[in-house]
Amino acid sequence: MTAIDQLVTKIKKTNAPVVVGLDPMLNYIPEWICSRVFAERGETLEAAAEAVWQFNQGIIDAVFDLIPAVKPQIAMYEQFGIEGLKVFQKTCAYAREKGLIVIGDVKRSDIGSTSAAYAVAHLGKVQVGSKQYPLFDEDFATVNPYFGTDGIKPFLDVCQEEKKGLFILVKTSNPSSGEFQDKLVDGRPLYELVGEQVAKWGETCMGESYSSIGAVVGATYPEMGKVLRKLMPKTYILVPGYGAQGGKAQDLVHYFNEDGLGAIVNSSRGIIAAYKTERYASFGEKGYADAARQAVVDMIADINGALADTY
Amino acid sequence: MTAIDQLVTKIKKTNAPVVVGLDPMLNYIPEWICSRVFAERGETLEAAAEAVWQFNQGIIDAVFDLIPAVKPQIAMYEQFGIEGLKVFQKTCAYAREKGLIVIGDVKRSDIGSTSAAYAVAHLGKVQVGSKQYPLFDEDFATVNPYFGTDGIKPFLDVCQEEKKGLFILVKTSNPSSGEFQDKLVDGRPLYELVGEQVAKWGETCMGESYSSIGAVVGATYPEMGKVLRKLMPKTYILVPGYGAQGGKAQDLVHYFNEDGLGAIVNSSRGIIAAYKTERYASFGEKGYADAARQAVVDMIADINGALADTY
Repeated sequence: MTAIDQLVTKIKKTNAPVVVGLDPMLNYIPEWICSRVFAERGETLEAAAEAVWQFNQGIIDAVFDLIPAVKPQIAMYEQFGIEGLKVFQKTCAYAREKGLIVIGDVKRSDIGSTSAAYAVAHLGKVQVGSKQYPLFDEDFATVNPYFGTDGIKPFLDVCQEEKKGLFILVKTSNPSSGEFQDKLVDGRPLYELVGEQVAKWGETCMGESYSSIGAVVGATYPEMGKVLRKLMPKTYILVPGYGAQGGKAQDLVHYFNEDGLGAIVNSSRGIIAAYKTERYASFGEKGYADAARQAVVDMIADINGALADTY
Repeated sequence: MTAIDQLVTKIKKTNAPVVVGLDPMLNYIPEWICSRVFAERGETLEAAAEAVWQFNQGIIDAVFDLIPAVKPQIAMYEQFGIEGLKVFQKTCAYAREKGLIVIGDVKRSDIGSTSAAYAVAHLGKVQVGSKQYPLFDEDFATVNPYFGTDGIKPFLDVCQEEKKGLFILVKTSNPSSGEFQDKLVDGRPLYELVGEQVAKWGETCMGESYSSIGAVVGATYPEMGKVLRKLMPKTYILVPGYGAQGGKAQDLVHYFNEDGLGAIVNSSRGIIAAYKTERYASFGEKGYADAARQAVVDMIADINGALADTY
């Protein structure tokens, strides 16, 4: 089955167009985990990585049955060097074991020959002599479009071969994303041209109704999301920026198609650090994973409620 | 000393505005290295990474006294997973031990909080309890501008704190780079707007005559390089695409300022796999490092010759 059909099947099964971002900053991790691990292993990179790993396991165990997918943000692991990247890999593998689809938020891109190496690293298998090895083995990876078609092509090739997928940046959720992305080209913003191109690239990786080549469009720009939805009817949209970054459920309904599909909304901090917010403070530090579960339940209800009001 | 002043000092000392790209594909590595390592360790990821490491050591030992800097391309290491990334880190450290400046070709970028983690990983130090650890510890990193200012700002902050630098993608060397980068915005190509923004970002990280915030402009677009040179007078330009990708020395003189500075030209395949080309075939597989040295000598002469003809 294509990557997108697996994702759509999971979304339908869980009735949750939701992905949990596993972006563990050390200050999201409850003190009791850090102090226990530091006591055992010292204030080392290995200990920091172990704390992240224990934290992630707790989150995944608490939410895996509610959601179709997780999105580990590799930068949060890379900042602990090799030890952190080992935990990124373990987290991807553990999530897959639990039946979750893994969207590797890696934002890689380069010229063709180099993109081919990134595609192998994140979605494919590397050839060593007569043997082949999977590496980080994500189901989808996020990719930056700045290089144009020949920087994307090697990713498309691996997606076809391995039945994997991409989410390509179109309009990002951050405040200054408009600096280049909104610039008008023949009267139309650049992100629309990128979106059209993503739709075209996606034709090479079609599943049943959608393409395995998706787009990233931030929740913080709902009017633009509405336009992009229509421009790329068969493109799945990964929507970051809900919750902590300010995106609201009623703003997100137009990222979906009338079939109730076509978008998957990410929340990271709002879920994994829910116990730190007033709303979920009663769970306490010990209950961080239960707080995350409740935050997921509430997020699904919030988004499905907004969708029910509209369609 | 700022990162850019260190680089300029090195360039003047070696009289070589040249950087060697350490982008080792397995098929660039001589058979005798691979077969020896595979015999010892099997056809494993660890063996592949070890072959890359031995190959790199040979190259670095052969060229370190001729050049100011090396540019390891992280994708080529990431494709061997954790074992490959360990060798990326070892290669950066070894090159620095040998007195070389390390330009980490990592093309990272994201929204602000995530860029901060990448900046820590590649240029800074991570805080673990009361301790701080450097990670990949490059001197410069390459960065993608698609997110705009708030995606770049955390990198600038770390550059100021740690006296490190960036090379931000402006006009990339690949054939389809024009697809988005050349789009006209108010009659001017997008890459010019990006270039102006890079110059502005660079004002926060000035060295003596140049900024530690440089730009990537491909050798394959010399007319655009000429324009960008004038638009960003204090921006150092990292120029990929010489040699194997088709860029020629006489095309590159306008990437330099009249002081003979302002640009550093990269060659990867053309140096590290020189022994595979007709011109250096006489060195043989055993002489791959000597072939690389000769190719560096010839590249320096080629570029300095073209510069002497012009200025």
